Amino acid sequence: MFDPYKLQLDDLKNRDPKYLETIFSIGNGHFGSRATDPLKPTHNGGTVINGFYESSPIIYGEQAYGYAKNHQTIINLPDLRSIQIAEGDGQFFATEQLISQTLNLKTGIMTTESTLISPSGHQIRLALQAILGQHRQQAAAFRYTLTALNFSGPVRVAKQLWLDAAETQSDDPRLARSVQTLNFTHSANESGQQVVVTTDRSQLQAGIKIDAPAKWELTLDESISSSFDVLAAVGPIVDAAAAYPELALPESFDILAEDAQTYWNKTWANGNVEITGDDALAQGIHYNLFQLNSSAGRDGLTNIAAKGVSGTGYEGHYFWDTEMYMLPYFTLTNPTIARNLLAYRYHVLPAAKKRARELGVDHGALFAWRTINGEEASAYYPAGTAQYHINGDIAYAIGQYFAATGDFAFMRDMGFEMLLETAKFWASFGSWFTVRGESYFGFFDVTGPDEYTVIVDNNFYTNKIAQHNLQLVVAAARAFEKAGQAIPLGVTESDLTELARIAKGIYLPVDDALKIHPQDDSFLKKPRWPFATTPKDKYPLLLHFHPLTIYRYQVNKQADTLLADYLFPDSISDSQTQRDYAYYEPVTTHDSSLSRAIFSAVAARLGMADKAYAYFTDTARMDLVDLQGNAADGLHLANLGGSWLSIITGFAGVKYTGAQLSVTNHLPEQWESLAFIINYQGRALKFTLTHGTTTASLEFGEPIDVVIDGHQTVVS
Amino acid sequence: MFDPYKLQLDDLKNRDPKYLETIFSIGNGHFGSRATDPLKPTHNGGTVINGFYESSPIIYGEQAYGYAKNHQTIINLPDLRSIQIAEGDGQFFATEQLISQTLNLKTGIMTTESTLISPSGHQIRLALQAILGQHRQQAAAFRYTLTALNFSGPVRVAKQLWLDAAETQSDDPRLARSVQTLNFTHSANESGQQVVVTTDRSQLQAGIKIDAPAKWELTLDESISSSFDVLAAVGPIVDAAAAYPELALPESFDILAEDAQTYWNKTWANGNVEITGDDALAQGIHYNLFQLNSSAGRDGLTNIAAKGVSGTGYEGHYFWDTEMYMLPYFTLTNPTIARNLLAYRYHVLPAAKKRARELGVDHGALFAWRTINGEEASAYYPAGTAQYHINGDIAYAIGQYFAATGDFAFMRDMGFEMLLETAKFWASFGSWFTVRGESYFGFFDVTGPDEYTVIVDNNFYTNKIAQHNLQLVVAAARAFEKAGQAIPLGVTESDLTELARIAKGIYLPVDDALKIHPQDDSFLKKPRWPFATTPKDKYPLLLHFHPLTIYRYQVNKQADTLLADYLFPDSISDSQTQRDYAYYEPVTTHDSSLSRAIFSAVAARLGMADKAYAYFTDTARMDLVDLQGNAADGLHLANLGGSWLSIITGFAGVKYTGAQLSVTNHLPEQWESLAFIINYQGRALKFTLTHGTTTASLEFGEPIDVVIDGHQTVVS
Repeated sequence: MFDPYKLQLDDLKNRDPKYLETIFSIGNGHFGSRATDPLKPTHNGGTVINGFYESSPIIYGEQAYGYAKNHQTIINLPDLRSIQIAEGDGQFFATEQLISQTLNLKTGIMTTESTLISPSGHQIRLALQAILGQHRQQAAAFRYTLTALNFSGPVRVAKQLWLDAAETQSDDPRLARSVQTLNFTHSANESGQQVVVTTDRSQLQAGIKIDAPAKWELTLDESISSSFDVLAAVGPIVDAAAAYPELALPESFDILAEDAQTYWNKTWANGNVEITGDDALAQGIHYNLFQLNSSAGRDGLTNIAAKGVSGTGYEGHYFWDTEMYMLPYFTLTNPTIARNLLAYRYHVLPAAKKRARELGVDHGALFAWRTINGEEASAYYPAGTAQYHINGDIAYAIGQYFAATGDFAFMRDMGFEMLLETAKFWASFGSWFTVRGESYFGFFDVTGPDEYTVIVDNNFYTNKIAQHNLQLVVAAARAFEKAGQAIPLGVTESDLTELARIAKGIYLPVDDALKIHPQDDSFLKKPRWPFATTPKDKYPLLLHFHPLTIYRYQVNKQADTLLADYLFPDSISDSQTQRDYAYYEPVTTHDSSLSRAIFSAVAARLGMADKAYAYFTDTARMDLVDLQGNAADGLHLANLGGSWLSIITGFAGVKYTGAQLSVTNHLPEQWESLAFIINYQGRALKFTLTHGTTTASLEFGEPIDVVIDGHQTVVS
Repeated sequence: MFDPYKLQLDDLKNRDPKYLETIFSIGNGHFGSRATDPLKPTHNGGTVINGFYESSPIIYGEQAYGYAKNHQTIINLPDLRSIQIAEGDGQFFATEQLISQTLNLKTGIMTTESTLISPSGHQIRLALQAILGQHRQQAAAFRYTLTALNFSGPVRVAKQLWLDAAETQSDDPRLARSVQTLNFTHSANESGQQVVVTTDRSQLQAGIKIDAPAKWELTLDESISSSFDVLAAVGPIVDAAAAYPELALPESFDILAEDAQTYWNKTWANGNVEITGDDALAQGIHYNLFQLNSSAGRDGLTNIAAKGVSGTGYEGHYFWDTEMYMLPYFTLTNPTIARNLLAYRYHVLPAAKKRARELGVDHGALFAWRTINGEEASAYYPAGTAQYHINGDIAYAIGQYFAATGDFAFMRDMGFEMLLETAKFWASFGSWFTVRGESYFGFFDVTGPDEYTVIVDNNFYTNKIAQHNLQLVVAAARAFEKAGQAIPLGVTESDLTELARIAKGIYLPVDDALKIHPQDDSFLKKPRWPFATTPKDKYPLLLHFHPLTIYRYQVNKQADTLLADYLFPDSISDSQTQRDYAYYEPVTTHDSSLSRAIFSAVAARLGMADKAYAYFTDTARMDLVDLQGNAADGLHLANLGGSWLSIITGFAGVKYTGAQLSVTNHLPEQWESLAFIINYQGRALKFTLTHGTTTASLEFGEPIDVVIDGHQTVVS
């Protein structure tokens, strides 16, 4: 029923037009195009360019010192698919019925077939094929094929570059706000049109060019197809001008399709995941990886928005999602993209240093919780700026990237400085305190990943990732020494000793009675959320309860302590993780899309096969079944990466935190086999898991030692 | 140098016009008139009516469920003092020099003397006397006396009822926002003018009437004074229409002055405080009581705004300040006003019940943290709605009022229901938890009085006042029984048993090592604020540091734990209070005007005479020396009441929580004597403290037993 590399309309139950716009959207990291009804432009149905935003002052009910000053809002650009078709008498055709939509995950071509009808009853069948360039990242092409079904005669075609920034207001903090300060110039002649959009406050500029005039005539013959292509170019934003130097149209639809084909061939060759025994899940993971690739900025100046380029939800902002949920895929399949995503953080490091000062911390840098340009754009600090853990998340990702690639050049140019600045932040931000006569280092008034518990002391996750952050500086310094290179930035032995001393002092308690990691100093004292008396329609809780109501209970939006357990299997035992899992799972709502993938991976590692499989199923097809109910606003990018984590780090138990890569077979009984390719230390390695056997092969590069199911193995 | 009953310009160092407008403002509980330069109308220089507000939607940077929906903003009404004087050629006179201002605290008359000058150099001396009715609370009268200093001839006088709602924006959360949705109609004829102001959203209406036409001519003779009066009426707002039935002008300036004189005579007779040996402090306390009386709503539908009717700061909102800092004065000197202030809370009890539901609490009522109409108007819940203690504060005040008056009628009609609803809230809101094997009841994610520490668990003050709230229900029920009356509202013995059981379980720990009350579960672990390295110009901290920076340190804006110690001397020992004082004083910035009065009173009781006196000095003349630096926005009403608390409950050690009134002499050595009158159980009692002696006399009523300096005494 499900084609593992082709998503079709029939694979989906939800037929809400906005939902379908998201699901069938295509992108290339630079920009995205939603699958709008070409005959019916909608106000959030257009094109978005990764990182192309306008800012506006944040208005607070009550203002205070140091609050984030400006919204940054990704801009809805003219819909590239939009077209108008009119009869000779001027009456417009409208879409009568959507017949099929197909997203080909191997070619990148998205096809929409529909019938159109005019007020006089004339019908046309329209097939629209859309493709975005993957190497020529500013290029797009659209092929319109029209077949008159019950008439012959002329029609008038109009192609307008159209812009609408209608007002939207909502209580849902996950949506985007509208932008009112765009300047929009349009020029057109016989051979094409161009729109230039300039923002007032963020001072950015983008252009869209197409090779079609504003209108032309076409004569249709009944049952004979007529076809025309529209070629388009989109970009650049000012910062990325160097990356996309020229606003040039592609040569043709077919040449652009070839460009995309090359990219997707390589992407699947370097990082495919093959599931035998469940085509639905196979389709899910392929779809997820396809969309993850489509949304990841590749130019070192942009990142991956929470909704990628598939919609304007969360205002196009970058969060910790990138480093913790999406980057691992790139690190192990396309290190160049991984490096460029981390380069974005380096690009905004000056803003992070400034932000640390605004938070009253004298040393180091604090990355913005949500941002495009590097400045904090979170208008609600308890679940925003207070999530200091983003510093540790970025450091963790740098550590992983370095462990997988051994990229000393990156570490010297950018990585080490980010590790150091984030570590200095922790050292300056935290403080020593005494528990039962012992001195510990910890952090007060912080928020961990779980946004249903805020402004707490010694959040376990935060403490753990901060400790790791401090240790990474020391480890990186030692790596430079071992490679015979000087430690960068003049870091001295006594600096390292001090960071190591603080790392050693970090407070990471285990509760005496429950033998679990307390999520924070107060969590375990609170009453449990009254799950038994909360109706299903009151989830997600954040839309139905005052924050103060949610915060005073033991209730998790997402994996928090368990995420720490997941990240640090070398220092947290399985039995400890098992107890934490048993405690926190019943209080977790998974109201965040970042939750289930982690529960799946941890369950797989712990041998809880049923739980691992159930969570993975939700994860693998989360947006395809609209599990969160808001895919209309855009895909849940973190979960796309998360589903890959579930497979690779869960079912295949991949770890590479130590000196060696290791794989541990936790293949679900429902599958016949699992095969995947990853890139590690310059090698391409293919692993195949069946029930009872795990095999590895070297697709590229020198032989290497890996640990397979506990045994040292040379892959050659 | 200082006249104890007359405030004069020379008594003040700050000559900022807006500051002087506040200091010399006059009011009558219903409305207030700032001491504006009559020749120079300013945009916040007008008239305010207690409780006359407009609402506007609160815009949040990030919206969430259950947030307060609307601002309520007190409205700047036309300036009643404003006048224009022009020469025959149309050139206007302007104020050349302010010569004197005098606020007579015994008559209520405020006099401004100034010289005016025209562009041609003509000078006039203007004396403006202003008086507000105290029984006729809608009436005001202004007497203008003009003396031409260097010319004779006609002048044209214009009297305009003028309105300006200019836009103001500020990072200072303590200011008010502007109002843009007023409808303003003006009518004028030969004999007078009237303005009617209607609000769009709050649907309120107020009228201002004066007996002066818009313009007239006057002939001045050099060195001869000419005088005219303007009579005015202000009111009513819709709800208070019953209290102020008719918008009627007073008969004359003199009749209105008599009305005011009667009120002030009675006020001083019933509640005076005489300090012998320090006229500056005597003036301070008289000024404070004068202004406290001038701002207290008396109609049962209004309350006392944080800035009274002296300015628009804090948007004219009512806070807990009333019950904890201001009401005690009225309870012990003018129980009718005290009762009406509590009646206001009863009036908004339905809104409080609704609010409890919005906070996810199934039973009881939660009073709004800041409000005019009873609905929550706090746009920052961590230092707003999270201050649940307001429930206990109101309950405490009801208990005190009942203890002082024995007013069973009030208790049956209003008081008991408020006690019960607030107690039910605590019971439903809190939860049981275990500490060292013992079961306790407490409250999570709350904010205590100290706004530099928010969203904490088991704030000691909150726990203590909640416990008292629960106990008050039981005590009131017993009082009804004892008086042979049924317990109201069908409360049963088992209801009382349950409330008592919870009260008994309330968590009120003492720290093992420090032997102090921990402010909350986490306070003592945090590092101390770096006071040594914080320059003076960085105070108040709230204007110079991000909330997250402030919150993660041990630093208090105001008395918090110490306020609990202060309120409950019967259950918290002096030695305990002494330790708490020693611990918390060094971490308290007194950035709140609500702090010093409590430190003074506690220090006095503990025999720390120097500290008590120093804090009292700051308290007694806080606005007269502009200690907080923002008196221009309005008086610090809580501190006005607080300075009375310092004297009565500190230096005189008055307590009436038990069955008897007690007085304990802690007279500062700097004073010769202290005498004060209070009303207790229907008696007027006068106490005189000198060094070594405390005497009491019965000014009115039946003999009564009181405890004086530890000895049972019959005052007769």
